[in-house]
Amino acid sequence: MPPPEVDALLFDVFGTVVDWRSGVAREAEAIAARVGLPSIDWAAFADRWRARYQPAMEEVRSGRRPFVPLDVLHRENLEGLLRDSGIEPGRDIAEPDIEHLNRAWHRLDPWPDSVTGITRLKTRFIVAPHSNGNLALLTNMAKRAGLPWDAILGAQVVGHYKPEPASYRGACEMLGLPPERCMLVAAHNSDLIAARNATGMRTAFISRPFEYGPEGRDARPTSDFDYVADSITDLATQFGC
Amino acid sequence: MPPPEVDALLFDVFGTVVDWRSGVAREAEAIAARVGLPSIDWAAFADRWRARYQPAMEEVRSGRRPFVPLDVLHRENLEGLLRDSGIEPGRDIAEPDIEHLNRAWHRLDPWPDSVTGITRLKTRFIVAPHSNGNLALLTNMAKRAGLPWDAILGAQVVGHYKPEPASYRGACEMLGLPPERCMLVAAHNSDLIAARNATGMRTAFISRPFEYGPEGRDARPTSDFDYVADSITDLATQFGC
Repeated sequence: MPPPEVDALLFDVFGTVVDWRSGVAREAEAIAARVGLPSIDWAAFADRWRARYQPAMEEVRSGRRPFVPLDVLHRENLEGLLRDSGIEPGRDIAEPDIEHLNRAWHRLDPWPDSVTGITRLKTRFIVAPHSNGNLALLTNMAKRAGLPWDAILGAQVVGHYKPEPASYRGACEMLGLPPERCMLVAAHNSDLIAARNATGMRTAFISRPFEYGPEGRDARPTSDFDYVADSITDLATQFGC
Repeated sequence: MPPPEVDALLFDVFGTVVDWRSGVAREAEAIAARVGLPSIDWAAFADRWRARYQPAMEEVRSGRRPFVPLDVLHRENLEGLLRDSGIEPGRDIAEPDIEHLNRAWHRLDPWPDSVTGITRLKTRFIVAPHSNGNLALLTNMAKRAGLPWDAILGAQVVGHYKPEPASYRGACEMLGLPPERCMLVAAHNSDLIAARNATGMRTAFISRPFEYGPEGRDARPTSDFDYVADSITDLATQFGC
């Protein structure tokens, strides 16, 4: 298949570029050990934190709440989760440690192919994250991990969380490009379908079977996306980069 | 002097990082030769285009006009300038050529020290442009010139043109940093003074005597900025990078 006639590749990040589950578990476990919290299943803790992600954004997407950055939603969700885990914020864990834990999402590791793949794709395309993460989160993550983005987009920059149509539209507009000159690269069918239906953006599905844990899961495209790849380096190879 | 205790360096761009005058003149001259426009003084053309920049932004800053990206203001100013130069848009120069000329601002060359200096500073600090240029302009410029920004900020991302206080405040907020952990790096006294007065940001003045032409001009700090440097590489050396 020839390389796509697009100018920019916009990447979903959590799950597509970075392994949020093991990163959050690692960071939480390290902080817990340091501050003397009880030993719990920190991978399950990561899953439970992540489970509060969509409902929190839905408050914003629905218009019931004005836009706030993901760091704020993560923090609110973290405090609720700590309490539900029998850990009282301010008593069992001090404010600086809560905040450091909240920023675990800024310190996630990329999948092994992400930096190499994005570096190769960058030779031919504008590469930028379009994540629900806020700009500071995505910038700090990139700096720590060596992700060579050309720009940082995302929900905060456009004022709308995915999968709102305005989120995808806004990202293309910020780049000064019509949607058909932009491609969303993502590991999630719903994200790609929303982008395509809302704007006509091109789509590339990346299979990430281990996003939800080492036992793996079915991670296949459920729609006819423009490209399907096993990794970001595979996508770069398909694009001749 | 020890390196500053800041996490991010925000750079003014036009004049500080890139040489807008010779770049716009070069691009305009090349397009004019190709489409058969009369030969005029293209450096003076660049000056006259730039002279319309502040008044156009003032319409937005004053609230008389909703925020529009700089590409839009540049385009309006260009059409007026072409007419004043005896060149009728659509008759003497076709739409695609006008648009290509308008995007001359996306294709400016950095000063000789900019890429090296920013690359060195990036090893220790978050580096990002905070310019009145829009995101597409700054992203395309960086990609062409090899400017290794960690993120693209600027008026469009925060919704306010400099030197509005909300512009500087918004840039720090997007990075999740208090203003005193951010430094503005700029060749213009007014920009630095506005940032410091509005937010408490740290300041570094870069001397760019040739911004307005090869004859040079006095380019000295008029206030007691935290750092004063002859170039961005000089700043990197002062910071031990």
